[in-house]
Amino acid sequence: MTFPVVGMVGGGQLARMTHEAGIPLGIKFKLLSDTPQDSAAQVVSEVVIGDYRDLDTLRSFARGCDVLTFDHEHVPTEHLRALEADGIPIRPGPEALVHAQDKGVMRAKLDAIGAPCPRHRLVSDPEDVARFAAEGEGFPVVLKTVRGGYDGKGVWLVRSSKEAAEPFRAGVPVLAEEKVDFVRELAANIVRSPHGQAVAYPVVESIQVDGVCDTVIAPAPDLDPELAGQAQELALRIGQELDVVGHLAVELFETADGRILVNELAMRPHNSGHWTQDGAITSQFANHVRAVLDLPLGDPRPRAKWTVMANVLGGDYPDMYAAYLHCMARDPQLKIHMYGKDVKPGRKVGHVNTYGDDLADVRERAAHAAGYLRGTITE
Amino acid sequence: MTFPVVGMVGGGQLARMTHEAGIPLGIKFKLLSDTPQDSAAQVVSEVVIGDYRDLDTLRSFARGCDVLTFDHEHVPTEHLRALEADGIPIRPGPEALVHAQDKGVMRAKLDAIGAPCPRHRLVSDPEDVARFAAEGEGFPVVLKTVRGGYDGKGVWLVRSSKEAAEPFRAGVPVLAEEKVDFVRELAANIVRSPHGQAVAYPVVESIQVDGVCDTVIAPAPDLDPELAGQAQELALRIGQELDVVGHLAVELFETADGRILVNELAMRPHNSGHWTQDGAITSQFANHVRAVLDLPLGDPRPRAKWTVMANVLGGDYPDMYAAYLHCMARDPQLKIHMYGKDVKPGRKVGHVNTYGDDLADVRERAAHAAGYLRGTITE
Repeated sequence: MTFPVVGMVGGGQLARMTHEAGIPLGIKFKLLSDTPQDSAAQVVSEVVIGDYRDLDTLRSFARGCDVLTFDHEHVPTEHLRALEADGIPIRPGPEALVHAQDKGVMRAKLDAIGAPCPRHRLVSDPEDVARFAAEGEGFPVVLKTVRGGYDGKGVWLVRSSKEAAEPFRAGVPVLAEEKVDFVRELAANIVRSPHGQAVAYPVVESIQVDGVCDTVIAPAPDLDPELAGQAQELALRIGQELDVVGHLAVELFETADGRILVNELAMRPHNSGHWTQDGAITSQFANHVRAVLDLPLGDPRPRAKWTVMANVLGGDYPDMYAAYLHCMARDPQLKIHMYGKDVKPGRKVGHVNTYGDDLADVRERAAHAAGYLRGTITE
Repeated sequence: MTFPVVGMVGGGQLARMTHEAGIPLGIKFKLLSDTPQDSAAQVVSEVVIGDYRDLDTLRSFARGCDVLTFDHEHVPTEHLRALEADGIPIRPGPEALVHAQDKGVMRAKLDAIGAPCPRHRLVSDPEDVARFAAEGEGFPVVLKTVRGGYDGKGVWLVRSSKEAAEPFRAGVPVLAEEKVDFVRELAANIVRSPHGQAVAYPVVESIQVDGVCDTVIAPAPDLDPELAGQAQELALRIGQELDVVGHLAVELFETADGRILVNELAMRPHNSGHWTQDGAITSQFANHVRAVLDLPLGDPRPRAKWTVMANVLGGDYPDMYAAYLHCMARDPQLKIHMYGKDVKPGRKVGHVNTYGDDLADVRERAAHAAGYLRGTITE
């Protein structure tokens, strides 16, 4: 047997679910994890415990791997370049991944290829933020550190230059963006392989609560088919121009006047694609594995008219297993995906998928199960 | 978190796929495997290497498990009784499992509950086989050792008492059965939980080649709905009467005169249920896990009009990974399930699932992929 070994850097739930998707392919999976308790480390047989910020650790881990891929975007770009120079295939490669690591680099590249973005520029201090505001519609303005943010962290909505001090304290460059008056958030997800094959998933609607993804509806309801096509085309073009390999999530704003603007990029399986596990012919995780191995990609089309994903956040009750009885008995079609994480308030510890022909019913079932698991619904 | 630990005895592909199905539930999985190279041992994090025939090994393994279940039926019944006496939940329990371990016990019980079986009785020597033949339609007669057989092993078709010597050499009791003049083989698969909930999968057709399952079609084409209902009812009744917990496969003969007869029982996920991974709302593996944990069972209904499973047997080419390029490019909807086993001629090393609305197309795709992976189709 000459089945390849995929090295996964990072032990979070994305690695866990990628491993799950790799098992049927007979792929060997090797994990670099911070601790043995990490989500993926609980379910993978070959685990190396180590720090992904240390090049020697990465080099040692990479020996015996046929390709490296990632659970997150935090591996230093220079380390990835060094590994690539060692001859190890890095997918996505550092020159692509830097656009998901650094929002300044991302915005500059998107401008260069003519991808529609919110008005933006790097800002140097709170006074510069006031100038940025004055150049457009004024406050409020969105400030983002160019590196290190996720799930609403590293992002501030400021209403005056007085409120703008905090983002500059980390010493990381700060990007200012107009506060887009969007009607909803969408995500256009694609998977692309090294030889340039790409597949586009249906465009989905992503509903955020407190800056964290709460619900994803696939496909996005009542989305103008032309705009959906534009969004898929845009994601495919970004994938090609940035030479992305693997799953690319393009998070979008849909504006009241019928435009789409790029909000964020992620180059790995993404929360907005979790619905594909139960709702698409080929899941984002299976296609990510196929892409990083340069295997032909699987069919991305939906298997159901509607699929809804609802995130399960930690609540006041630490024992989510006890909630299984109610949730499974109430909805025998419910798909639960738990990550093996300790419950902490607000922490993403799992998600549920539901599907069917009646969107209202599918949404209600997902919301009920996620709420019951969290403990905010008790009946 | 109070998620339970499921102890799986046996490291074959059924354990591998049960583990895969348990990951989304956040269940902890502990494996007792013969070697670290076994199919499941390659993908499970907590593996104990040991001999399932040794009671001390089993006792040590069972510590820290909330429930034990099985990849195969070869654990000695007396060991299971001892573990149960220790207070460890064994699912299915020894009093149920013995019917899948011992064909003599199985036939006696099926007779007692009035389940339709081929004519049969225990035979003591070749002359007794001749008497058994004379009691019915004569030779040929099927002989089976009551313990230890699988995939055509431990089964003989004999045409005279002269041919009947071999089965008696192992010193295991031998069961004689009439050679049923069947039109095809069916399987009625159910999953049952300790509190008595049960779900029935659609009845499938199982096509054997050289005594090994080659293809499964779900649902069985052109099956009289009344006979399908009888088969499901029979499987549910056997599950209840034998107090089975977990997946129960009832392999059946369909006769030319429209009857069904029980051929074999298996109390674990079964080859005839592999189609459920991609073709049913809840797979046999997910429902087996739910059953052994006494969780409410998932919906067993099909997601596609037709699903076909084809086994991938080892052929002359050891490198099946090379065949992925062709298979995946030819059929982007193909579902490959490989077991991580070394290729040996005739050995089951994986299976493929296909689904769709056109049975001829679905069958062709499955047969092509399985043949290409094996190396019997090269274009």
